[in-house]
Amino acid sequence: MNAEKIPDIIISRLPVYLRALQHMADNGLKTTSSQELGEHVGISAAQIRKDISQFGEFGKQGTGYSIEYLLDKLREILKVDRRWDVIIVGAGDIGHALARYQGFANRGFNVVMIFDKDKSKVGQKIGEFTIEDTANLIEKVKAADIKIAMLTIPAPAAQEIADKLVQAGVKAILNYAPINLNVPKNVKVQYIDPATHLQRMTYYL
Amino acid sequence: MNAEKIPDIIISRLPVYLRALQHMADNGLKTTSSQELGEHVGISAAQIRKDISQFGEFGKQGTGYSIEYLLDKLREILKVDRRWDVIIVGAGDIGHALARYQGFANRGFNVVMIFDKDKSKVGQKIGEFTIEDTANLIEKVKAADIKIAMLTIPAPAAQEIADKLVQAGVKAILNYAPINLNVPKNVKVQYIDPATHLQRMTYYL
Repeated sequence: MNAEKIPDIIISRLPVYLRALQHMADNGLKTTSSQELGEHVGISAAQIRKDISQFGEFGKQGTGYSIEYLLDKLREILKVDRRWDVIIVGAGDIGHALARYQGFANRGFNVVMIFDKDKSKVGQKIGEFTIEDTANLIEKVKAADIKIAMLTIPAPAAQEIADKLVQAGVKAILNYAPINLNVPKNVKVQYIDPATHLQRMTYYL
Repeated sequence: MNAEKIPDIIISRLPVYLRALQHMADNGLKTTSSQELGEHVGISAAQIRKDISQFGEFGKQGTGYSIEYLLDKLREILKVDRRWDVIIVGAGDIGHALARYQGFANRGFNVVMIFDKDKSKVGQKIGEFTIEDTANLIEKVKAADIKIAMLTIPAPAAQEIADKLVQAGVKAILNYAPINLNVPKNVKVQYIDPATHLQRMTYYL
């Protein structure tokens, strides 16, 4: 298997399979088929078989997939068979929501710090976290060897903070600011922007 | 132009172009090129030209695109040349954040109601909104002819609420619950799940 050769579009579907398989496991299921998984995720059985076969032989003709085995393999492929430390930059509404979100730990992530540049917020608590000053961002992120950040600040400040994150060694940014970020090719960005997502649906209305 | 024939993947990129063009317009720019737009959004100039040409001839060889004209056309294509009423179901952290979010109005959306099933929340205010009882969801959504909903409730309750939304006539759901929804083919769902987005990046780390 050559990681460089798997198309991004396939990688983007694997977390969706992983999530659906985890739900099946939570409901006590032991095996599944590409048909059944396809019904859960709204993707054709043929596509699922093709996607999964990129990484080896995981199912047997006629007996389907062992859910636990496929979960282990997907976690390994996506590198969430470990726990990644993640920081949040921006202690606004979304930053608060993410800091309190309980759904990260069992999916490979551990929020460890939250930053804001607003001096009136610095030092305040969000659950177990104390909001830290963005002025110390580079130093703290470097010291803790953080590779992943969630950016929940207004658009005008986002590029400047992204530059600092890159400088500090961050390689993956989940960007909630409604603006495209310019980052080096070895840094990944994913975008969450509800208005963009809504506009992808209005076309069909 | 036959709307049925444009691939989903192209439609999914149009809101990203729209957002970048709006930023350019906000910065006083009048024209752009597929190269320049491509640098903003991280998509090749060739892909952008191909995507936009699906809908007609918008640029002139050598002179590029008029930003205002392309904005108008993209808004028309995506049907955000009007204002869509949207409801929020779930008055938790994310529901609060969305209810207070200022970025919807200038992108075609207007939050009009927020619901929760928790009787201790019903009647409380979030900004200008009074939280309404999910028990009245179907009736209120039907009466106001709402077509779009954002679902910000825990996964176990999401399918049941999605069924009610469909019953009430909703045709587009932005789902923040970390679970795949089963809906009729004529109802669109977009998913926002930060853990899934993070897992799309850890593969590359």
